[in-house]
Amino acid sequence: MPELAFEDFTSGRVFDLGTVTADRDEMVEFARRFDPQPFHVDEEAGRRSVFGGLCASGWFTSCLWMRAFVDGVLSKSTSQGSPGGTEFGWPRPMFPGDVVQAQAVVIGARESRTRLTLGLVELRAEMLRGEDVLFRSVFTGMFGRRA
Amino acid sequence: MPELAFEDFTSGRVFDLGTVTADRDEMVEFARRFDPQPFHVDEEAGRRSVFGGLCASGWFTSCLWMRAFVDGVLSKSTSQGSPGGTEFGWPRPMFPGDVVQAQAVVIGARESRTRLTLGLVELRAEMLRGEDVLFRSVFTGMFGRRA
Repeated sequence: MPELAFEDFTSGRVFDLGTVTADRDEMVEFARRFDPQPFHVDEEAGRRSVFGGLCASGWFTSCLWMRAFVDGVLSKSTSQGSPGGTEFGWPRPMFPGDVVQAQAVVIGARESRTRLTLGLVELRAEMLRGEDVLFRSVFTGMFGRRA
Repeated sequence: MPELAFEDFTSGRVFDLGTVTADRDEMVEFARRFDPQPFHVDEEAGRRSVFGGLCASGWFTSCLWMRAFVDGVLSKSTSQGSPGGTEFGWPRPMFPGDVVQAQAVVIGARESRTRLTLGLVELRAEMLRGEDVLFRSVFTGMFGRRA
């Protein structure tokens, strides 16, 4: 049995997922493929934009959080994926070289009505640069229950 | 002035973003970097999972939609980014080779209260494989207004 099952996701529990550094090359390469808006791929366009500088696609910020969540939580858990969530946002942009703190907080949990072996956990994802929130999301994770 | 400004995003307008084919190699490479859960990176683990086969990270599906949205809409628009949204989900998994239809539908639009040159557009993003919804999201886009 993995270390973390449904029963371990108790309301209020905080998972510290460590820090991630935003690599400029990877950030730009990601944006060229998936989100080639000028302020995500071009230094000068970034400076002229509302963001004030070349900044990451929000999807890249989200994906860095996801990797930290897999490493810190899902890989040690009975995770069976996620149907989605009810909130996502990027209040502040992430810039190259930013050192960001990733965390996940359990908001609530309930047993599945339709599948007895599963439980649904509501979590808040956060990527923080000091006080600044770079990514925040509320979503549902599905986890296997202990026998 | 770009082709699409705030005023062009009228409620109910549908943007057909064309079709995208899910490339197995890119799907797995993406998952190895950002979402290395077994069912996203390993054929056999996928078969044993609730998904019934190796399937894409939801983030990859979202990112393919984003690229289609940039190509079909944002690159011709006064887009100034997005603060986020209120809903996102992956009702059905995407499998290698899937041919998926991308679209964006305008749900509503309002002028910004704080910034006179901007308008906020609420959009629904969708990735469809026939009748199956692989990705759906409701989010806000910020667009410059015509002079």
